[in-house]
Amino acid sequence: MTDPPGEATAFAPGHVTALFAPYPADDPVRAGSRGAGLALSDGVEATVGPVHGDRRVVRLDGEVVDLAAVTGVLDRLAPDARVAVDATTDLPVGAGFGVSGAAALAVAFAANDALELGRSENELVRAAHAADAAAGTGLGDVVAQFRGGVPLRLEPGAPGHGALDGVPARPRVEYVTFGELSTAAVLDGDLDPVRTAGEDALTRVVRDPTLDRLVTESRRFADEAGLLVPEVREAVEAVDEAGGRASMAMLGRTAFAVGTGLSDAGYDPAACRVHPAGATLR
Amino acid sequence: MTDPPGEATAFAPGHVTALFAPYPADDPVRAGSRGAGLALSDGVEATVGPVHGDRRVVRLDGEVVDLAAVTGVLDRLAPDARVAVDATTDLPVGAGFGVSGAAALAVAFAANDALELGRSENELVRAAHAADAAAGTGLGDVVAQFRGGVPLRLEPGAPGHGALDGVPARPRVEYVTFGELSTAAVLDGDLDPVRTAGEDALTRVVRDPTLDRLVTESRRFADEAGLLVPEVREAVEAVDEAGGRASMAMLGRTAFAVGTGLSDAGYDPAACRVHPAGATLR
Repeated sequence: MTDPPGEATAFAPGHVTALFAPYPADDPVRAGSRGAGLALSDGVEATVGPVHGDRRVVRLDGEVVDLAAVTGVLDRLAPDARVAVDATTDLPVGAGFGVSGAAALAVAFAANDALELGRSENELVRAAHAADAAAGTGLGDVVAQFRGGVPLRLEPGAPGHGALDGVPARPRVEYVTFGELSTAAVLDGDLDPVRTAGEDALTRVVRDPTLDRLVTESRRFADEAGLLVPEVREAVEAVDEAGGRASMAMLGRTAFAVGTGLSDAGYDPAACRVHPAGATLR
Repeated sequence: MTDPPGEATAFAPGHVTALFAPYPADDPVRAGSRGAGLALSDGVEATVGPVHGDRRVVRLDGEVVDLAAVTGVLDRLAPDARVAVDATTDLPVGAGFGVSGAAALAVAFAANDALELGRSENELVRAAHAADAAAGTGLGDVVAQFRGGVPLRLEPGAPGHGALDGVPARPRVEYVTFGELSTAAVLDGDLDPVRTAGEDALTRVVRDPTLDRLVTESRRFADEAGLLVPEVREAVEAVDEAGGRASMAMLGRTAFAVGTGLSDAGYDPAACRVHPAGATLR
């Protein structure tokens, strides 16, 4: 049994996936996706500390929850530790912001510090990535959330497997959410059209690594991959008409825009900014 | 001739090299070092904008300067652009904080934005790394300054060549500087003892990626590599006696400590914190 833990808090940014090409694999460390997205200043903050009782407890915004990615990362890093996890987030869950990945990543950093596990950053990212992939809740959010900024995931998988680049930009980001969409359900469907559209879109972003190109290709990807849902299409077209640029967060019923696109189109969006850092201790 | 530029500002953290094994190479993109250090919240902020006149002008803290790493990165990214660079820093120059690398990196990000160069983050880091290496002012600062945190440089070279990990920690850092030390002069000497001591130290830090280990190994490295200068040795020993832990910033006449080591030993140090993010647009 691990010693009673100290307490530590860590933050991981949310991540809007703009486009992706999924590469599932039996080994969750190798499973992943190529793609591009935006790390957000809205994210997940998690405190890991001692628990009053015999069992591990995980709370999200005060409610006891069963988050498979968080359970999985603790099982990987400290299976015997009795800890309480208190996580909070401004982001909607299941709406395409990678909340499960951010929670797993923040918990990994906080647990490493509270329990003095002595792991390196890459080991923590690898554990969180594997837990998110094994839970079926994400295939690329964690590595993007560790890098921060506007990450381009050039190769799938955890550190040591994946390769990253980024678009050097730090815009304001607006978003409106119309409800949940199951990542697992989409990932269980036919992935070939998604992968083809994602590869084509990523190739074009790598050739022209700018923000404009990223949002344009995200929207084209959503159409070509057959992922655009009606409410999001309506919002994206309204932003177009107002002279802005928007697309859909993969995978959620969420429209996102850079700058003031959604406000200009008459929506009342949440707003944040691209987060320059990845996951970090507070 | 590139169009008259817009204006953009970027920040890059300072970097205290704690230990290193140098690997010079004729190709500055491949030249580099393995090693470990601390990215600092004290760093360099640089604005790139239009110049009033025919020639490029570079200022550091208001004075016109000839910084080879900055000239080199502009020559690589936008050789024909007439720009003014205004850089400011809280850090002492030539004292082991990687100011030249931070300036090159901040200028790369700001120039990319101001001139709409459309480069990716890795391309900007590669240009700044090559310029710093070619100028003889640094062999590993730039890649560490792009990552942020407490980077471990596992393989030498720019992105696409180097590989990184990190110690997950974000402590307060104190430092006292007693004067300059020429990086180029040390890198022109016999590198074998430095490389052997650096490799041994890095191996031990990779095995135990904690902050305590990093500072302990940094100090042992400074001794074994024959780099510890008398003023720094005195400060480091005073911190020891006060119950703290300190070492020397490579390569400068600078002692650094985590936490309040130097204050506790009666020095009047500058203080900052490990910077969680790498170089970023403001």
